[in-house]
Amino acid sequence: MYDLLIKNIDVLSNDTTINHAAIAIQDGYIKFIFTNKQDIVKATAESTEVLDGKGQLAAPGLINTHTHIAMGLFRNYADDLELMDWLQNAIWPTEAKLNDHYVKYGTQLGIAEMLRSGTTTFSDMYFFMNTTAEEVKSSGIRAVLSRGLAGVSPTANQALVENADLYRTWHGFDNHRIKVLLGPHAPYTCPDDYMEKVIALSKEIGAGIHMHLSETKGEVENVIKATGKTPIAHMHDLGLFYNGALAAHCVHVTPEDMEIMAENNVAVAHNPQSNLKLASGIAPVPEMIAKGITVGLGTDGSASNNNADMLEEVRLAATLHKARLYDPKAIPAQAAWNMGTVEGAKALGYHDLGVLQEGYRADIVLYNADQVHWMPRYNDVAALAYSANSSDANTVIVNGKILMKDRELLTIDEEKLKAEIKNAQEFFGHL
Amino acid sequence: MYDLLIKNIDVLSNDTTINHAAIAIQDGYIKFIFTNKQDIVKATAESTEVLDGKGQLAAPGLINTHTHIAMGLFRNYADDLELMDWLQNAIWPTEAKLNDHYVKYGTQLGIAEMLRSGTTTFSDMYFFMNTTAEEVKSSGIRAVLSRGLAGVSPTANQALVENADLYRTWHGFDNHRIKVLLGPHAPYTCPDDYMEKVIALSKEIGAGIHMHLSETKGEVENVIKATGKTPIAHMHDLGLFYNGALAAHCVHVTPEDMEIMAENNVAVAHNPQSNLKLASGIAPVPEMIAKGITVGLGTDGSASNNNADMLEEVRLAATLHKARLYDPKAIPAQAAWNMGTVEGAKALGYHDLGVLQEGYRADIVLYNADQVHWMPRYNDVAALAYSANSSDANTVIVNGKILMKDRELLTIDEEKLKAEIKNAQEFFGHL
Repeated sequence: MYDLLIKNIDVLSNDTTINHAAIAIQDGYIKFIFTNKQDIVKATAESTEVLDGKGQLAAPGLINTHTHIAMGLFRNYADDLELMDWLQNAIWPTEAKLNDHYVKYGTQLGIAEMLRSGTTTFSDMYFFMNTTAEEVKSSGIRAVLSRGLAGVSPTANQALVENADLYRTWHGFDNHRIKVLLGPHAPYTCPDDYMEKVIALSKEIGAGIHMHLSETKGEVENVIKATGKTPIAHMHDLGLFYNGALAAHCVHVTPEDMEIMAENNVAVAHNPQSNLKLASGIAPVPEMIAKGITVGLGTDGSASNNNADMLEEVRLAATLHKARLYDPKAIPAQAAWNMGTVEGAKALGYHDLGVLQEGYRADIVLYNADQVHWMPRYNDVAALAYSANSSDANTVIVNGKILMKDRELLTIDEEKLKAEIKNAQEFFGHL
Repeated sequence: MYDLLIKNIDVLSNDTTINHAAIAIQDGYIKFIFTNKQDIVKATAESTEVLDGKGQLAAPGLINTHTHIAMGLFRNYADDLELMDWLQNAIWPTEAKLNDHYVKYGTQLGIAEMLRSGTTTFSDMYFFMNTTAEEVKSSGIRAVLSRGLAGVSPTANQALVENADLYRTWHGFDNHRIKVLLGPHAPYTCPDDYMEKVIALSKEIGAGIHMHLSETKGEVENVIKATGKTPIAHMHDLGLFYNGALAAHCVHVTPEDMEIMAENNVAVAHNPQSNLKLASGIAPVPEMIAKGITVGLGTDGSASNNNADMLEEVRLAATLHKARLYDPKAIPAQAAWNMGTVEGAKALGYHDLGVLQEGYRADIVLYNADQVHWMPRYNDVAALAYSANSSDANTVIVNGKILMKDRELLTIDEEKLKAEIKNAQEFFGHL
């Protein structure tokens, strides 16, 4: 009757830990969370597979709302540079050598890293996105994919075609384990006439929008110089937010921008570590939340982070804004944890994901909580937000399927992957 | 001839990785780093113990320049509160119930956590410090201990006696594996007449100073109100810096403060995560370094962090100041790594620690670098600063002795420790 039962498990459900429980999973959903011993005995007999969760804490999988996952290929390739120096002299010349083969293994590298660190969903924007979709399909992770669209590129129109094809091929795959958005890159790569094409395509095929907005001071200043408006106001006037959008970064947004975002269902992918590392600044997250804006978390690409560890983003979200506002209550542990899970799910349009609760999708991480850095166990949400280590993720389940068990990946050949990444390193060489 | 040889190892020595090397250790020091195959064969035959480092990267152990390690007992006990609410209603009433027994296991908890996350030295300020010294002795970790001295406490004078006894008993133990400082707590707990006693004692016995200084805006404002001077200037005028000092935090220091610190050899323990979480602010670290001040890193106590993971501090040191100053070069990866290692060593008065180099103390961490989040391997310093996970620490050596091997602690009974922490949780209860 159940596909999978996780028993002897402590379950973090919203802000409460339910001890000695069992989670029954059927068709990719959490069917029941049992606490009664007799129910658990009965469910055990009725389950195809049973996992023993002793010493572990079940928590919702982390949701990475913004990354360029294949950029893990360029991890630690070039750091601590001015943005334009980094892009023009390190990243763009290297990306020019990309092809399906390297994106395949770059994507696999990122998926392996994400599963190992407790992430079960990622929202991606990059090239060769059909290849990424194939890797998402085979690995079993959940993903929201967008083909990066740069109007200034010679392939600008071809990219629109590819994104539309991606949508038609993959959107809704496996009960929406894969979704597709359009990925207009940023105001500085997408002129107005190109954005009009993007919006027209969005309306034509029904695809949502994922775009970098207001990441740096320079971007905002340039858009104001060109249009007299902030990037958010300008995109709003172009009609981009007619059906909401996912806006990555939003570091430099004004109170007026936030009003527009709140009124138009523009959700934010907050990438605190990337924003620190690239010297972009600190986004006004408590202010955005106060306006009613949905804020999720993202790692950004591993060339600008330099990992895909979402627990670091939760920790930064919980701590960074406290210091910026001199307010220890600015983002409490629970709020940061929610940003990394259920709020991120909402930002990606999933309203039954990110909480361990009956009727929700079964994307679950079992953390090994029987370790010194989790002790004493006064508060599991605080432990996750402030103390835990992403490698404490011991077993990872997406859509009801076990993708990592006792730290072993079940859908990725990790030794082959490592060999391929060594080959890629030789191919891309060093600066 | 050698006590220990680590072979088949990549060695991070300053900013360069030496591949396929061997580290020969004798009497607690790095005697040679061999790269010649014949030398390695010869040394293997001449070594009492040989470790195979295949797939691992040897790096200097992390140096935690400021903590209250036994406060791990109160991890996740109370968070996201105003500082005075947290201290008065959560921490102080709970600390009042401390005794040697709980400090013993609280210290052991912290040491276990530090070794597991690649920290080989810690600088502590707390109570029952003789008990902590015994745990340092038996665990084999390196430590610089100071008895917390609060002039406003009823035990103020007794604390001075205890700190002097601690110094006489432990300072210099095991070739300076243990050192002792005096630990005047902070300007707001140490009135001038008490500070005069501390300074007199320092001169009498020759002990250095470890003190919280300029942690919060409120502290600085209050000292200015009372004395017309900043905490740094005031302590300088009292004569506290006659022989240097270790100053924890220094979040709110002026350019004039920095001049005093640079001229008087006042080293800083920068605790970025604690400063964020307690909403204290962001210390002007690049500015202090530019003045020539030695800056190390610390975690602060695990009740205010909430872990003892130094790699997180390295990462924050590398990223936080970039965003604050809108400068991606503010603290490069190498500078942050140095703060976590060799600069921290200098801050604690060790001038032969924190680099893997012949003649330096053999405090070494072997990281398991054969993992997806380390790949590709373009730059090991960037990997440590931006990508690595503290649980990648696989084997830990302090003073030439192996304290953790393949993730197993050799000097701490971890199962007994966990049971004792569960008992402590029952004893201290919940808020």
